Amino acid sequence: MKFSVTVTLKKDVLDPQGKVVQNTLINMGMKNLKGIRQGKHFEIDVDEIDQVSAEKKVDEICKKLLVNLIIEDYKINKI
Amino acid sequence: MKFSVTVTLKKDVLDPQGKVVQNTLINMGMKNLKGIRQGKHFEIDVDEIDQVSAEKKVDEICKKLLVNLIIEDYKINKI
Repeated sequence: MKFSVTVTLKKDVLDPQGKVVQNTLINMGMKNLKGIRQGKHFEIDVDEIDQVSAEKKVDEICKKLLVNLIIEDYKINKI
Repeated sequence: MKFSVTVTLKKDVLDPQGKVVQNTLINMGMKNLKGIRQGKHFEIDVDEIDQVSAEKKVDEICKKLLVNLIIEDYKINKI
């Protein structure tokens, strides 16, 4: 069972990496750009038949390793 | 108009970063884990009213800066 996890910085946390991308695009002549924020994306393949327990496992993986809950939010989707 | 862009390595490209995450999880005692692949995630806010031209702009941003088309795939979604 495959899940995608998207990890993004919380709204009020500064995102220097995204800012660099944004400035680069502006320097390249890109107009009408309001903002860019960067995050992480994971595709996790879990060997479970039951969707509920599989999702629980992915949630555990996020909380234990992938996400810093103080500054980041995350979303889990089945794919 | 906001778009999310997900950049992932193509299927046959090795993903050492994802492999490290996977090995770490196994060392932490996680079972039934088949695989993890890591990618990038961007949230792009474009100042356009027309959705078609906004998407075109985001696509241009991807091709010019965010994505290495030789080894990476990308997906654009409106949010």
